[in-house]
Amino acid sequence: SKNTNSSFSSFSRTFHPVAEMLDLPFLPFCAFLGALGSVCVASVAAWCQYWRGGFSWDGTARTFNWHPVLMVTGLVVLYGAAALVYRLPPAWSGPKFPWKVLHGVLALLAFILAVLGLVAVFRFHGAQGIPNIYSLHSWVGLATVLLFSCQWLAGFSAFLLPVAPAWLRALYKPIHVFFGSTILFLSVASCVSGINEKLFFSLKNGTMEYKLLPAEAVFANILGLLLVLFGILVLGALAKPSWKRPDSDSPDSRQVPTLSLWS
Amino acid sequence: SKNTNSSFSSFSRTFHPVAEMLDLPFLPFCAFLGALGSVCVASVAAWCQYWRGGFSWDGTARTFNWHPVLMVTGLVVLYGAAALVYRLPPAWSGPKFPWKVLHGVLALLAFILAVLGLVAVFRFHGAQGIPNIYSLHSWVGLATVLLFSCQWLAGFSAFLLPVAPAWLRALYKPIHVFFGSTILFLSVASCVSGINEKLFFSLKNGTMEYKLLPAEAVFANILGLLLVLFGILVLGALAKPSWKRPDSDSPDSRQVPTLSLWS
Repeated sequence: SKNTNSSFSSFSRTFHPVAEMLDLPFLPFCAFLGALGSVCVASVAAWCQYWRGGFSWDGTARTFNWHPVLMVTGLVVLYGAAALVYRLPPAWSGPKFPWKVLHGVLALLAFILAVLGLVAVFRFHGAQGIPNIYSLHSWVGLATVLLFSCQWLAGFSAFLLPVAPAWLRALYKPIHVFFGSTILFLSVASCVSGINEKLFFSLKNGTMEYKLLPAEAVFANILGLLLVLFGILVLGALAKPSWKRPDSDSPDSRQVPTLSLWS
Repeated sequence: SKNTNSSFSSFSRTFHPVAEMLDLPFLPFCAFLGALGSVCVASVAAWCQYWRGGFSWDGTARTFNWHPVLMVTGLVVLYGAAALVYRLPPAWSGPKFPWKVLHGVLALLAFILAVLGLVAVFRFHGAQGIPNIYSLHSWVGLATVLLFSCQWLAGFSAFLLPVAPAWLRALYKPIHVFFGSTILFLSVASCVSGINEKLFFSLKNGTMEYKLLPAEAVFANILGLLLVLFGILVLGALAKPSWKRPDSDSPDSRQVPTLSLWS
């Protein structure tokens, strides 16, 4: 299942053992990434449960608490899993269609969690009389979700419905790939600004101020750094040529010419 | 000066006129990007001058105002220019060395501005008795500048000093390319969280609150979106295969085998 066309592999065999050593297999990397993603989800839930009063649907700050949990789980962790589906070695051989369905279903789940995350914050704002969509965090976050909805609909129409002509699929594929990475980058930027904003809101009392770095602030700052690390690792895995599915082997893509405008 | 090896170009000639139409030349794109970068620098300076009281070096909030201006100019706009040097068609033929020097000098200027940007905020905090490096914005921003310093030193040692063996340069090049994009992504995430944080700090009075979206908030939010757009366009330009320098044509790189682990 190793991509023997990788220029890096052929280089490493010819030139230096260090290069071969650094050509990490995908599955151990993927296991580490899965653990890191789980730690991120568990941490954001622990933050909201332990320091922010837990969860409810009554319009109080406990309703807001669903927002970070759903966004981290959907827009970062599940989204990252959806993006990496084609890097799984079992997806490299045989028909591509079932993997496309898995990619689309995981992305749809990620999108549904993101929409529920928006509903949670709108419900909290509505109950408390706080205006919606004023901060830069909310502008960037909303742009991320809107781009994601376009990406999902265009991907579904082009790659899962049998209506798009081959030239259009081939033209759109590298654009889909590029925006796949872009939306993850925007998700992580939204999370960083959102965690930062939430800590300034929540830590206002004299002995608990954000600038005095209480335990909650250190915990949530580390959560932010872990989300950045998760995003960088997913983007790195997507960019690594030797982990890319050799599309020419696939019966499905034989009808669609491979190209790499943005990949 | 067109890269005729681009799989997209060959595809577009074979398959459909729409594909050819979308294969934008680099120079008009670059002119647009230069204009966008200039608008970002002018906007952040205008924000600080018009709404935040202008600039000084006396330790007041007017000292802090250098921070966003220097960071946007250095870590985003100049950094983006440095990253795109090898995409300029004149850099595609002839010796690579002068373009390496230009890349290194622009990156060094970007780094110096970023360090001055840090000095400005430390000086402001020192004079006002505000702790340093407590917010997630500051953690992500500092990580960005530290990564950038490693990137610059490693790039200088590997590609400009004549000490690194060819196999090490070839091994490091795709890592340098990957972290080049990663640092820009971190810079933009730092800017978004920083602008968001600054608006919450500055807009506190009853009639001027951030959530009431006064003109300053709309202006700075749009600045944040323009920085995101600038970052996405630079990352897109870096990823587009037909804009990449055909390294095999260069006398300099003939000694170093080309490889593409992360590119």
